[in-house]
Amino acid sequence: MTEQITVVKIGGNVLDDAGALARFVAAFAALPGRKILIHGGGKLATRLAGRLELETKMVDGRRITDKGTLDVVTMVYAGLVNKQLVAALQAAGCNALGLSGADGNVVRASRRKAEPVDYGFVGDIQAVDDGLLRKLLEAGIVPVFCAILHDGKGSLLNCNADSVASAVALAAARIAPTDLVYCFEKRGVLRDPADEGSVIAAITTESFVTLRTEGVVSKGMLPKIETALRAVAEGVRSVRIKHADDLLNDHGTIIRP
Amino acid sequence: MTEQITVVKIGGNVLDDAGALARFVAAFAALPGRKILIHGGGKLATRLAGRLELETKMVDGRRITDKGTLDVVTMVYAGLVNKQLVAALQAAGCNALGLSGADGNVVRASRRKAEPVDYGFVGDIQAVDDGLLRKLLEAGIVPVFCAILHDGKGSLLNCNADSVASAVALAAARIAPTDLVYCFEKRGVLRDPADEGSVIAAITTESFVTLRTEGVVSKGMLPKIETALRAVAEGVRSVRIKHADDLLNDHGTIIRP
Repeated sequence: MTEQITVVKIGGNVLDDAGALARFVAAFAALPGRKILIHGGGKLATRLAGRLELETKMVDGRRITDKGTLDVVTMVYAGLVNKQLVAALQAAGCNALGLSGADGNVVRASRRKAEPVDYGFVGDIQAVDDGLLRKLLEAGIVPVFCAILHDGKGSLLNCNADSVASAVALAAARIAPTDLVYCFEKRGVLRDPADEGSVIAAITTESFVTLRTEGVVSKGMLPKIETALRAVAEGVRSVRIKHADDLLNDHGTIIRP
Repeated sequence: MTEQITVVKIGGNVLDDAGALARFVAAFAALPGRKILIHGGGKLATRLAGRLELETKMVDGRRITDKGTLDVVTMVYAGLVNKQLVAALQAAGCNALGLSGADGNVVRASRRKAEPVDYGFVGDIQAVDDGLLRKLLEAGIVPVFCAILHDGKGSLLNCNADSVASAVALAAARIAPTDLVYCFEKRGVLRDPADEGSVIAAITTESFVTLRTEGVVSKGMLPKIETALRAVAEGVRSVRIKHADDLLNDHGTIIRP
């Protein structure tokens, strides 16, 4: 079985926009070949935490996941967002099946050390079980991952969805040639954040150093590109960063080793 | 492959009690053979709805599931309760995998007619896919179901967990001999609700008529016994109603055709 696998990550801003989400679901369902979806969902969790009067604590732009926050992100990501996406994909003829990392022990993580900053119930990915992924894909199932993982000792852990997408793509690459696509609300990596026409066509390890030195790439984009570069270096065939509306065409930024 | 299957339903009161839940998880993990878990989670949902200032509307003891309530039960049942159970079972060495009815289209429902009472986003079970169940069980996976189903047209639907347990057990019975166990916080069906020693050892279709006529069986227990009687009539090998602490012994009430 050598049919290629496409791993798609869909960002929170697309999930927050009903029209954009409906277009994305239709496009993802139409994507040929075997495929896997990974989703975020940050803003919904922040809104629910606000309604529950939980304080959202951030350090250096990262959310601190205390027990109350862990429950909220588990409810929103693994519950509401995951099941709404799965139901919408089923209606579009795509045999989706939602997963957290705990389900079938498919993605195990370890809780991040409390030094220098204690981020709470936040995990770093340890292992992805390609055996279960292979069985699901062989059964014609489309796994839909949220970024809630577990430590194997009974604790759920919050994780970064971009990192989950990369780790799942690397596991998929052990099964068949795998392409990873990061979909969000921009046309790609932009040279000028205000100009949607300034998409950088390709980024390599070498050109990334220049872009970073020149300060061209904006702060939030840096970890996404670093994750993408690692993924292609370690065995993912290609990584693209593109607008969710461009899923079925070849627009956007391609990341090469 | 003729190894028997045990389908266990765990009620909301056990989920609400950390000690009782920990004991149940250990017992369920120790249960020999292939197995499937179905869980409720009612009180957590009511508490969250309260904190979100959603009004819980009831007609004849049944919750009206408007859109806000559907989102809450999806978050609590498919998110928090399901993933906490799966993580706890994984820690106990049981390869659990959480499912709503939408996942893999495993349990499809249709929205209940709005006459005579419009219960909102409430579903009646249409079909359980034993093909996916078989594949999961063959892979050594323990499916863990919440009672959130879907209509195949993109809508999630809230359902009764006792009914999901019965429908899943009937599907499992097409794979191998299947026993269904309803676990809750009582020692079985009691002749006197105030006396835990008054467990009725066995109920048949015939004795149920007498118990109902005499008013011995309490109101909330009636639909549970009716569902159990239907399950044994339609192919489930046995149904027991028992205390969660009695999962590994043969105490409780046995339901016979």
